[in-house]
Amino acid sequence: MNNKSAEFGLFVVGGGPGDPDLITLKGYKVLKRADVILYDNLINKELLEIAPAHCEMVYVGKQPYGNYTPQETIHELIAFYSAPDRVVVRLKGGDPFIFGRGFEEVLYAEQHGIPAHYIPGISSMQASGFSGIPLTHRGISESMWIITGTKKDGTLSNDLKCAIKSTATVVIYMGMKKLAEIAKVYLQSGLGAMPAAMIQHASLPHQKKVVCKVKDLEAAAAESGISYPAIIIIGEVVNARELPMSELLKAS
Amino acid sequence: MNNKSAEFGLFVVGGGPGDPDLITLKGYKVLKRADVILYDNLINKELLEIAPAHCEMVYVGKQPYGNYTPQETIHELIAFYSAPDRVVVRLKGGDPFIFGRGFEEVLYAEQHGIPAHYIPGISSMQASGFSGIPLTHRGISESMWIITGTKKDGTLSNDLKCAIKSTATVVIYMGMKKLAEIAKVYLQSGLGAMPAAMIQHASLPHQKKVVCKVKDLEAAAAESGISYPAIIIIGEVVNARELPMSELLKAS
Repeated sequence: MNNKSAEFGLFVVGGGPGDPDLITLKGYKVLKRADVILYDNLINKELLEIAPAHCEMVYVGKQPYGNYTPQETIHELIAFYSAPDRVVVRLKGGDPFIFGRGFEEVLYAEQHGIPAHYIPGISSMQASGFSGIPLTHRGISESMWIITGTKKDGTLSNDLKCAIKSTATVVIYMGMKKLAEIAKVYLQSGLGAMPAAMIQHASLPHQKKVVCKVKDLEAAAAESGISYPAIIIIGEVVNARELPMSELLKAS
Repeated sequence: MNNKSAEFGLFVVGGGPGDPDLITLKGYKVLKRADVILYDNLINKELLEIAPAHCEMVYVGKQPYGNYTPQETIHELIAFYSAPDRVVVRLKGGDPFIFGRGFEEVLYAEQHGIPAHYIPGISSMQASGFSGIPLTHRGISESMWIITGTKKDGTLSNDLKCAIKSTATVVIYMGMKKLAEIAKVYLQSGLGAMPAAMIQHASLPHQKKVVCKVKDLEAAAAESGISYPAIIIIGEVVNARELPMSELLKAS
Protein backbone atom coordinates (compact mmCIF):
# COMPACT_ATOMS: atom_id res chain seq x y z
CA MET A 1 0.00 0.00 0.00
CA ASN A 2 2.66 2.34 -1.23
CA ASN A 3 1.26 5.54 -2.75
CA LYS A 4 4.33 6.19 -4.89
CA SER A 5 3.79 2.92 -6.70
CA ALA A 6 0.04 3.36 -7.03
CA GLU A 7 -0.05 2.59 -10.75
CA PHE A 8 1.66 -0.79 -10.83
CA GLY A 9 2.03 -3.87 -8.69
CA LEU A 10 -0.52 -6.24 -7.23
CA PHE A 11 -4.16 -5.16 -7.02
CA VAL A 12 -6.32 -7.35 -4.82
CA VAL A 13 -9.76 -6.55 -6.20
CA GLY A 14 -13.23 -7.47 -4.94
CA GLY A 15 -15.36 -8.60 -7.89
CA GLY A 16 -18.61 -8.33 -5.94
CA PRO A 17 -21.38 -10.87 -5.40
CA GLY A 18 -22.20 -11.83 -9.00
CA ASP A 19 -23.70 -9.06 -11.14
CA PRO A 20 -20.65 -7.74 -13.05
CA ASP A 21 -21.96 -4.18 -12.72
CA LEU A 22 -21.49 -4.43 -8.96
CA ILE A 23 -17.72 -4.08 -9.28
CA THR A 24 -16.47 -0.62 -8.22
CA LEU A 25 -15.38 1.97 -10.78
CA LYS A 26 -11.91 1.68 -9.23
CA GLY A 27 -11.88 -2.08 -9.84
CA TYR A 28 -13.17 -1.60 -13.37
CA LYS A 29 -10.41 0.88 -14.18
CA VAL A 30 -7.67 -1.42 -12.98
CA LEU A 31 -9.10 -4.38 -14.94
CA LYS A 32 -8.98 -2.13 -18.04
CA ARG A 33 -5.19 -1.99 -17.77
CA ALA A 34 -4.43 -5.43 -16.35
CA ASP A 35 -1.50 -7.42 -17.70
CA VAL A 36 -2.38 -10.56 -15.74
CA ILE A 37 -5.53 -11.59 -13.85
CA LEU A 38 -5.38 -14.34 -11.24
CA TYR A 39 -9.06 -15.16 -10.78
CA ASP A 40 -11.25 -17.14 -8.46
CA ASN A 41 -14.03 -19.60 -9.01
CA LEU A 42 -16.65 -17.25 -7.56
CA ILE A 43 -16.18 -14.27 -9.87
CA ASN A 44 -18.46 -13.58 -12.81
CA LYS A 45 -16.45 -14.50 -15.94
CA GLU A 46 -17.89 -11.43 -17.73
CA LEU A 47 -15.50 -9.35 -15.63
CA LEU A 48 -12.58 -10.89 -17.51
CA GLU A 49 -13.86 -9.33 -20.73
CA ILE A 50 -13.10 -5.85 -19.36
CA ALA A 51 -9.35 -6.55 -19.60
CA PRO A 52 -7.26 -5.60 -22.68
CA ALA A 53 -6.54 -8.22 -25.36
CA HIS A 54 -2.97 -8.90 -24.22
CA CYS A 55 -4.01 -9.72 -20.65
CA GLU A 56 -3.12 -13.20 -19.43
CA MET A 57 -5.88 -15.03 -17.51
CA VAL A 58 -4.81 -17.46 -14.80
CA TYR A 59 -7.43 -19.54 -12.97
CA VAL A 60 -6.54 -20.10 -9.31
CA GLY A 61 -9.98 -21.07 -8.08
CA LYS A 62 -11.31 -23.30 -5.38
CA GLN A 63 -14.32 -25.48 -6.04
CA PRO A 64 -16.59 -25.39 -2.99
CA TYR A 65 -15.57 -28.35 -0.84
CA GLY A 66 -13.47 -29.63 -3.75
CA ASN A 67 -10.17 -29.13 -5.55
CA TYR A 68 -8.34 -25.93 -4.92
CA THR A 69 -5.16 -24.05 -5.67
CA PRO A 70 -3.07 -23.98 -2.45
CA GLN A 71 -2.59 -20.49 -1.04
CA GLU A 72 1.20 -20.92 -1.32
CA THR A 73 0.85 -21.52 -5.06
CA ILE A 74 -1.17 -18.33 -5.43
CA HIS A 75 1.60 -16.45 -3.61
CA GLU A 76 4.21 -17.92 -5.93
CA LEU A 77 2.15 -16.93 -8.97
CA ILE A 78 1.87 -13.37 -7.67
CA ALA A 79 5.67 -13.20 -7.42
CA PHE A 80 6.14 -14.92 -10.78
CA TYR A 81 3.92 -12.52 -12.74
CA SER A 82 4.93 -9.30 -11.01
CA ALA A 83 7.38 -6.81 -12.53
CA PRO A 84 7.97 -3.08 -11.86
CA ASP A 85 5.84 -1.89 -14.80
CA ARG A 86 3.11 -4.52 -14.68
CA VAL A 87 -0.44 -4.59 -13.35
CA VAL A 88 -1.24 -7.94 -11.73
CA VAL A 89 -4.87 -8.22 -10.64
CA ARG A 90 -5.97 -10.76 -8.08
CA LEU A 91 -9.71 -10.88 -8.73
CA LYS A 92 -11.79 -12.40 -5.96
CA GLY A 93 -15.53 -12.84 -5.43
CA GLY A 94 -17.16 -10.50 -2.89
CA ASP A 95 -14.73 -8.47 -0.80
CA PRO A 96 -11.14 -9.77 -0.52
CA PHE A 97 -10.81 -8.86 3.17
CA ILE A 98 -14.08 -10.48 4.35
CA PHE A 99 -13.41 -14.20 4.73
CA GLY A 100 -11.21 -13.96 1.70
CA ARG A 101 -7.49 -14.38 2.06
CA GLY A 102 -6.66 -11.17 0.31
CA PHE A 103 -4.77 -9.76 3.27
CA GLU A 104 -2.30 -12.66 3.20
CA GLU A 105 -1.67 -11.92 -0.46
CA VAL A 106 -1.09 -8.23 0.22
CA LEU A 107 1.38 -9.10 2.98
CA TYR A 108 3.16 -11.67 0.85
CA ALA A 109 3.55 -9.17 -2.01
CA GLU A 110 4.88 -6.43 0.27
CA GLN A 111 7.35 -8.84 1.79
CA HIS A 112 8.65 -9.48 -1.72
CA GLY A 113 8.96 -5.79 -2.60
CA ILE A 114 5.82 -5.75 -4.77
CA PRO A 115 3.59 -2.68 -4.23
CA ALA A 116 0.20 -4.03 -3.14
CA HIS A 117 -3.19 -2.33 -3.35
CA TYR A 118 -6.59 -3.27 -1.98
CA ILE A 119 -9.80 -2.46 -3.82
CA PRO A 120 -12.88 -3.47 -1.82
CA GLY A 121 -15.91 -5.21 -3.29
CA ILE A 122 -19.60 -5.57 -2.48
CA SER A 123 -19.85 -8.59 -0.20
CA SER A 124 -22.56 -11.16 -0.91
CA MET A 125 -24.41 -10.31 2.30
CA GLN A 126 -25.05 -6.84 0.90
CA ALA A 127 -26.76 -8.30 -2.13
CA SER A 128 -29.43 -9.67 0.24
CA GLY A 129 -31.12 -6.36 -0.44
CA PHE A 130 -32.02 -7.66 -3.89
CA SER A 131 -34.15 -10.23 -2.10
CA GLY A 132 -35.89 -7.55 -0.08
CA ILE A 133 -33.93 -8.23 3.11
CA PRO A 134 -32.17 -5.27 4.76
CA LEU A 135 -29.26 -6.28 7.02
CA THR A 136 -30.31 -3.84 9.71
CA HIS A 137 -33.57 -2.02 10.28
CA ARG A 138 -34.31 0.45 13.07
CA GLY A 139 -36.41 -1.13 15.78
CA ILE A 140 -35.75 -4.67 14.51
CA SER A 141 -32.00 -5.21 14.53
CA GLU A 142 -29.33 -3.07 16.19
CA SER A 143 -26.37 -4.95 14.81
CA MET A 144 -25.25 -7.68 12.45
CA TRP A 145 -22.91 -10.55 13.01
CA ILE A 146 -21.02 -12.01 10.10
CA ILE A 147 -19.70 -15.51 10.68
CA THR A 148 -18.01 -18.12 8.56
CA GLY A 149 -19.69 -21.52 8.79
CA THR A 150 -16.44 -23.31 8.18
CA LYS A 151 -13.41 -22.50 10.28
CA LYS A 152 -10.02 -23.73 9.13
CA ASP A 153 -10.43 -26.79 11.36
CA GLY A 154 -13.82 -27.54 9.79
CA THR A 155 -15.92 -26.79 12.88
CA LEU A 156 -18.73 -24.28 13.27
CA SER A 157 -17.63 -21.15 15.11
CA ASN A 158 -18.56 -20.98 18.80
CA ASP A 159 -19.23 -17.31 18.17
CA LEU A 160 -22.70 -18.31 17.00
CA LYS A 161 -23.65 -19.09 20.61
CA CYS A 162 -22.79 -15.51 21.60
CA ALA A 163 -24.58 -14.08 18.59
CA ILE A 164 -27.96 -15.60 19.31
CA LYS A 165 -28.08 -13.87 22.70
CA SER A 166 -28.11 -10.49 20.95
CA THR A 167 -30.49 -8.59 18.66
CA ALA A 168 -27.99 -9.05 15.81
CA THR A 169 -28.97 -10.14 12.35
CA VAL A 170 -26.77 -13.23 11.90
CA VAL A 171 -25.19 -13.73 8.48
CA ILE A 172 -23.36 -16.98 7.81
CA TYR A 173 -20.95 -17.43 4.91
CA MET A 174 -20.00 -20.93 3.76
CA GLY A 175 -22.52 -22.54 6.08
CA MET A 176 -24.55 -24.72 3.73
CA LYS A 177 -22.92 -27.90 5.03
CA LYS A 178 -23.64 -26.90 8.63
CA LEU A 179 -27.41 -26.36 8.45
CA ALA A 180 -28.30 -29.03 11.02
CA GLU A 181 -25.65 -27.74 13.44
CA ILE A 182 -26.82 -24.14 13.02
CA ALA A 183 -30.43 -25.18 13.68
CA LYS A 184 -29.35 -27.06 16.79
CA VAL A 185 -27.66 -24.00 18.33
CA TYR A 186 -30.90 -22.03 17.98
CA LEU A 187 -33.13 -24.91 19.12
CA GLN A 188 -31.06 -25.36 22.28
CA SER A 189 -31.80 -21.74 23.16
CA GLY A 190 -35.50 -22.06 22.39
CA LEU A 191 -35.16 -19.96 19.23
CA GLY A 192 -36.06 -22.55 16.60
CA ALA A 193 -38.82 -20.37 15.16
CA MET A 194 -36.47 -17.49 14.26
CA PRO A 195 -36.91 -16.49 10.57
CA ALA A 196 -34.08 -17.54 8.26
CA ALA A 197 -33.28 -17.15 4.57
CA MET A 198 -30.83 -18.83 2.24
CA ILE A 199 -29.80 -16.87 -0.86
CA GLN A 200 -27.86 -18.38 -3.74
CA HIS A 201 -26.46 -16.38 -6.68
CA ALA A 202 -27.43 -13.12 -4.96
CA SER A 203 -27.71 -10.20 -7.43
CA LEU A 204 -27.87 -12.44 -10.54
CA PRO A 205 -30.98 -13.07 -12.66
CA HIS A 206 -31.08 -16.71 -11.53
CA GLN A 207 -30.88 -15.71 -7.86
CA LYS A 208 -32.72 -18.11 -5.57
CA LYS A 209 -34.14 -17.38 -2.13
CA VAL A 210 -35.70 -19.73 0.39
CA VAL A 211 -37.31 -18.47 3.60
CA CYS A 212 -38.11 -20.75 6.54
CA LYS A 213 -37.73 -21.07 10.29
CA VAL A 214 -34.15 -21.65 11.41
CA LYS A 215 -35.07 -25.11 12.74
CA ASP A 216 -36.18 -26.12 9.23
CA LEU A 217 -33.07 -24.96 7.34
CA GLU A 218 -31.94 -28.42 6.31
CA ALA A 219 -35.35 -29.60 5.14
CA ALA A 220 -35.99 -26.34 3.28
CA ALA A 221 -32.64 -26.59 1.48
CA ALA A 222 -33.30 -30.21 0.45
CA GLU A 223 -36.81 -29.44 -0.74
CA SER A 224 -35.85 -26.35 -2.77
CA GLY A 225 -32.58 -27.69 -4.14
CA ILE A 226 -30.75 -24.54 -3.01
CA SER A 227 -27.06 -25.25 -2.60
CA TYR A 228 -23.67 -23.65 -1.99
CA PRO A 229 -22.27 -21.14 -2.48
CA ALA A 230 -25.06 -19.34 -0.68
CA ILE A 231 -25.44 -17.02 2.28
CA ILE A 232 -27.66 -17.68 5.26
CA ILE A 233 -29.40 -14.78 7.02
CA ILE A 234 -31.08 -15.35 10.37
CA GLY A 235 -33.16 -12.78 12.24
CA GLU A 236 -36.37 -10.81 12.26
CA VAL A 237 -35.20 -8.67 9.30
CA VAL A 238 -35.90 -11.69 7.07
CA ASN A 239 -39.60 -10.96 7.48
CA ALA A 240 -39.28 -7.17 7.55
CA ARG A 241 -41.27 -6.93 4.33
CA GLU A 242 -44.23 -8.68 5.90
CA LEU A 243 -44.53 -6.28 8.84
CA PRO A 244 -47.22 -3.61 8.63
CA MET A 245 -45.87 -0.33 7.26
CA SER A 246 -46.87 1.51 10.43
CA GLU A 247 -44.61 -0.85 12.39
CA LEU A 248 -41.70 -0.36 9.98
CA LEU A 249 -41.88 3.39 9.80
CA LYS A 250 -42.76 4.14 13.42
CA ALA A 251 -39.10 4.10 14.43
CA SER A 252 -38.54 7.43 12.66
CA MET B 1 -38.04 -4.19 -6.92
CA ASN B 2 -40.10 -4.74 -10.02
CA ASN B 3 -38.07 -6.04 -12.96
CA LYS B 4 -40.49 -4.66 -15.55
CA SER B 5 -39.89 -1.15 -14.31
CA ALA B 6 -36.15 -1.58 -13.98
CA GLU B 7 -35.29 1.55 -15.96
CA PHE B 8 -37.26 4.17 -14.04
CA GLY B 9 -38.40 4.89 -10.54
CA LEU B 10 -36.49 5.33 -7.30
CA PHE B 11 -32.91 4.08 -7.08
CA VAL B 12 -31.51 3.91 -3.56
CA VAL B 13 -27.78 3.98 -4.29
CA GLY B 14 -24.81 3.43 -1.99
CA GLY B 15 -22.19 6.07 -2.72
CA GLY B 16 -19.45 4.22 -0.86
CA PRO B 17 -17.12 5.39 1.91
CA GLY B 18 -15.62 8.49 0.33
CA ASP B 19 -13.40 7.88 -2.73
CA PRO B 20 -15.81 8.58 -5.62
CA ASP B 21 -14.25 5.68 -7.59
CA LEU B 22 -15.60 3.30 -4.96
CA ILE B 23 -19.15 3.61 -6.29
CA THR B 24 -20.27 0.55 -8.26
CA LEU B 25 -20.50 0.59 -12.05
CA LYS B 26 -24.24 0.04 -11.59
CA GLY B 27 -24.50 3.13 -9.39
CA TYR B 28 -22.38 5.13 -11.83
CA LYS B 29 -24.64 4.19 -14.74
CA VAL B 30 -27.80 5.24 -12.93
CA LEU B 31 -26.24 8.58 -11.88
CA LYS B 32 -25.43 9.17 -15.58
CA ARG B 33 -29.15 9.23 -16.36
CA ALA B 34 -30.55 10.74 -13.18
CA ASP B 35 -33.27 13.39 -13.37
CA VAL B 36 -33.16 14.15 -9.65
CA ILE B 37 -30.63 13.27 -6.95
CA LEU B 38 -31.63 13.43 -3.29
CA TYR B 39 -28.25 13.36 -1.57
CA ASP B 40 -26.82 12.93 1.90
CA ASN B 41 -24.24 14.82 3.86
CA LEU B 42 -21.83 11.89 3.82
CA ILE B 43 -21.45 11.41 0.06
CA ASN B 44 -18.52 12.76 -1.90
CA LYS B 45 -19.84 15.78 -3.83
CA GLU B 46 -17.76 14.70 -6.86
CA LEU B 47 -20.35 11.98 -7.44
CA LEU B 48 -22.91 14.67 -8.31
CA GLU B 49 -20.77 15.68 -11.30
CA ILE B 50 -21.51 12.32 -12.94
CA ALA B 51 -25.15 13.36 -13.49
CA PRO B 52 -26.37 15.02 -16.70
CA ALA B 53 -26.71 18.81 -16.88
CA HIS B 54 -30.51 18.85 -16.46
CA CYS B 55 -30.39 16.84 -13.22
CA GLU B 56 -31.85 18.54 -10.16
CA MET B 57 -29.80 18.24 -6.96
CA VAL B 58 -31.67 18.18 -3.65
CA TYR B 59 -29.76 18.14 -0.37
CA VAL B 60 -31.50 16.08 2.31
CA GLY B 61 -28.52 15.55 4.60
CA LYS B 62 -28.06 15.20 8.28
CA GLN B 63 -25.19 16.92 10.05
CA PRO B 64 -23.68 14.50 12.56
CA TYR B 65 -25.43 15.24 15.85
CA GLY B 66 -26.91 18.37 14.29
CA ASN B 67 -29.66 19.57 11.96
CA TYR B 68 -31.29 17.02 9.76
CA THR B 69 -34.03 16.49 7.22
CA PRO B 70 -36.78 14.41 8.88
CA GLN B 71 -37.25 10.98 7.30
CA GLU B 72 -40.89 11.84 6.56
CA THR B 73 -39.75 14.84 4.50
CA ILE B 74 -37.40 12.62 2.49
CA HIS B 75 -40.33 10.28 1.80
CA GLU B 76 -42.46 13.19 0.64
CA LEU B 77 -39.70 14.41 -1.65
CA ILE B 78 -39.39 10.94 -3.18
CA ALA B 79 -43.11 10.99 -3.99
CA PHE B 80 -42.96 14.61 -5.19
CA TYR B 81 -40.14 14.07 -7.68
CA SER B 82 -41.21 10.66 -8.98
CA ALA B 83 -42.99 10.17 -12.30
CA PRO B 84 -43.35 7.11 -14.57
CA ASP B 85 -40.50 8.11 -16.92
CA ARG B 86 -38.15 9.66 -14.38
CA VAL B 87 -35.02 8.45 -12.62
CA VAL B 88 -34.92 9.60 -9.02
CA VAL B 89 -31.68 8.71 -7.26
CA ARG B 90 -31.44 8.64 -3.49
CA LEU B 91 -27.68 8.82 -3.00
CA LYS B 92 -26.44 7.78 0.43
CA GLY B 93 -22.97 7.35 1.94
CA GLY B 94 -21.75 3.79 2.40
CA ASP B 95 -24.40 1.10 1.86
CA PRO B 96 -28.06 2.19 2.16
CA PHE B 97 -29.13 -1.01 3.97
CA ILE B 98 -26.37 -1.00 6.63
CA PHE B 99 -27.47 1.44 9.34
CA GLY B 100 -28.88 3.58 6.58
CA ARG B 101 -32.61 4.01 6.28
CA GLY B 102 -32.71 3.01 2.64
CA PHE B 103 -35.09 0.13 3.28
CA GLU B 104 -37.73 2.47 4.67
CA GLU B 105 -37.45 4.55 1.52
CA VAL B 106 -37.81 1.50 -0.72
CA LEU B 107 -40.92 0.43 1.22
CA TYR B 108 -42.40 3.91 1.13
CA ALA B 109 -41.90 4.16 -2.63
CA GLU B 110 -43.43 0.75 -3.28
CA GLN B 111 -46.41 1.63 -1.13
CA HIS B 112 -46.93 4.66 -3.37
CA GLY B 113 -46.67 2.68 -6.62
CA ILE B 114 -43.14 3.87 -7.41
CA PRO B 115 -40.83 1.09 -8.66
CA ALA B 116 -37.90 0.97 -6.22
CA HIS B 117 -34.41 -0.41 -6.78
CA TYR B 118 -31.52 -1.00 -4.41
CA ILE B 119 -27.91 -0.59 -5.51
CA PRO B 120 -25.48 -1.56 -2.73
CA GLY B 121 -22.37 0.41 -1.82
CA ILE B 122 -19.01 -0.23 -0.20
CA SER B 123 -19.56 0.29 3.51
CA SER B 124 -17.02 2.36 5.44
CA MET B 125 -15.89 -0.67 7.46
CA GLN B 126 -14.61 -2.21 4.23
CA ALA B 127 -12.39 0.77 3.58
CA SER B 128 -10.49 -0.13 6.75
CA GLY B 129 -8.38 -2.19 4.37
CA PHE B 130 -6.83 1.06 3.14
CA SER B 131 -5.43 1.45 6.64
CA GLY B 132 -3.94 -2.02 6.55
CA ILE B 133 -6.63 -3.58 8.74
CA PRO B 134 -8.44 -6.67 7.40
CA LEU B 135 -11.87 -7.25 8.98
CA THR B 136 -11.22 -10.97 9.35
CA HIS B 137 -8.00 -12.96 9.23
CA ARG B 138 -7.69 -16.72 9.58
CA GLY B 139 -6.41 -17.68 12.99
CA ILE B 140 -7.11 -14.21 14.44
CA SER B 141 -10.81 -13.51 13.99
CA GLU B 142 -13.57 -15.92 13.02
CA SER B 143 -16.30 -13.34 12.68
CA MET B 144 -17.12 -9.67 12.72
CA TRP B 145 -19.80 -7.84 14.58
CA ILE B 146 -21.09 -4.57 13.21
CA ILE B 147 -22.84 -2.34 15.74
CA THR B 148 -24.25 1.14 15.72
CA GLY B 149 -23.00 3.27 18.58
CA THR B 150 -26.18 5.27 18.67
CA LYS B 151 -29.53 3.53 18.87
CA LYS B 152 -32.66 5.51 18.16
CA ASP B 153 -33.05 6.16 21.90
CA GLY B 154 -29.47 7.44 22.10
CA THR B 155 -28.07 4.56 24.16
CA LEU B 156 -25.21 2.21 23.31
CA SER B 157 -26.42 -1.20 22.14
CA ASN B 158 -26.36 -3.96 24.73
CA ASP B 159 -25.21 -6.20 21.91
CA LEU B 160 -21.68 -4.99 22.61
CA LYS B 161 -21.67 -7.02 25.81
CA CYS B 162 -22.38 -10.18 23.80
CA ALA B 163 -19.84 -9.26 21.16
CA ILE B 164 -16.87 -9.00 23.49
CA LYS B 165 -17.39 -12.60 24.63
CA SER B 166 -16.64 -13.81 21.11
CA THR B 167 -13.60 -13.82 18.80
CA ALA B 168 -15.38 -11.28 16.60
CA THR B 169 -13.75 -8.18 15.23
CA VAL B 170 -16.07 -5.48 16.57
CA VAL B 171 -16.86 -2.59 14.23
CA ILE B 172 -18.79 0.36 15.63
CA TYR B 173 -20.51 2.92 13.40
CA MET B 174 -21.49 6.30 14.81
CA GLY B 175 -19.73 5.60 18.10
CA MET B 176 -17.43 8.61 18.46
CA LYS B 177 -19.63 10.13 21.20
CA LYS B 178 -19.65 6.85 23.10
CA LEU B 179 -15.91 6.23 23.49
CA ALA B 180 -15.91 6.27 27.30
CA GLU B 181 -18.90 3.90 27.44
CA ILE B 182 -17.32 1.52 24.93
CA ALA B 183 -14.08 1.47 26.92
CA LYS B 184 -16.04 0.74 30.09
CA VAL B 185 -17.72 -2.35 28.63
CA TYR B 186 -14.31 -3.80 27.76
CA LEU B 187 -12.69 -2.77 31.06
CA GLN B 188 -15.48 -4.44 33.04
CA SER B 189 -14.61 -7.70 31.30
CA GLY B 190 -10.89 -7.27 31.85
CA LEU B 191 -10.29 -6.56 28.18
CA GLY B 192 -9.07 -2.97 28.39
CA ALA B 193 -5.85 -3.78 26.54
CA MET B 194 -7.63 -4.98 23.36
CA PRO B 195 -6.25 -3.17 20.28
CA ALA B 196 -8.56 -0.56 18.77
CA ALA B 197 -8.46 1.80 15.81
CA MET B 198 -10.46 4.86 14.83
CA ILE B 199 -10.55 5.72 11.12
CA GLN B 200 -11.92 8.97 9.76
CA HIS B 201 -12.42 9.74 6.04
CA ALA B 202 -11.56 6.13 5.16
CA SER B 203 -10.45 5.74 1.51
CA LEU B 204 -9.80 9.47 1.00
CA PRO B 205 -6.37 11.13 0.70
CA HIS B 206 -6.88 12.92 4.04
CA GLN B 207 -7.82 9.66 5.80
CA LYS B 208 -6.79 9.61 9.45
CA LYS B 209 -6.12 6.56 11.60
CA VAL B 210 -5.42 6.32 15.31
CA VAL B 211 -4.46 3.03 16.98
CA CYS B 212 -4.58 2.54 20.74
CA LYS B 213 -5.85 0.21 23.45
CA VAL B 214 -9.62 0.17 23.78
CA LYS B 215 -9.36 1.61 27.31
CA ASP B 216 -7.57 4.67 25.88
CA LEU B 217 -10.04 5.46 23.07
CA GLU B 218 -11.24 8.75 24.51
CA ALA B 219 -7.78 10.07 25.34
CA ALA B 220 -6.42 9.00 21.94
CA ALA B 221 -9.27 10.74 20.13
CA ALA B 222 -8.75 13.95 22.09
CA GLU B 223 -5.00 13.92 21.55
CA SER B 224 -5.17 13.24 17.82
CA GLY B 225 -8.15 15.44 17.05
CA ILE B 226 -9.88 12.59 15.21
CA SER B 227 -13.62 13.14 15.12
CA TYR B 228 -16.89 11.92 13.64
CA PRO B 229 -17.89 10.58 11.24
CA ALA B 230 -15.41 7.78 11.87
CA ILE B 231 -15.51 4.03 12.36
CA ILE B 232 -14.10 2.23 15.36
CA ILE B 233 -12.55 -1.22 14.93
CA ILE B 234 -11.75 -3.30 18.01
CA GLY B 235 -9.92 -6.63 17.96
CA GLU B 236 -6.62 -8.35 17.34
CA VAL B 237 -6.87 -7.70 13.57
CA VAL B 238 -5.98 -4.07 14.30
CA ASN B 239 -2.42 -5.22 14.93
CA ALA B 240 -2.37 -7.93 12.24
CA ARG B 241 0.33 -6.06 10.36
CA GLU B 242 2.66 -6.16 13.34
CA LEU B 243 2.53 -9.95 13.71
CA PRO B 244 5.44 -11.95 12.31
CA MET B 245 4.75 -13.19 8.78
CA SER B 246 5.18 -16.81 9.88
CA GLU B 247 2.30 -16.29 12.32
CA LEU B 248 0.09 -14.68 9.70
CA LEU B 249 0.65 -17.24 7.00
CA LYS B 250 0.75 -20.38 9.13
CA ALA B 251 -3.04 -20.70 9.03
CA SER B 252 -2.87 -21.83 5.38
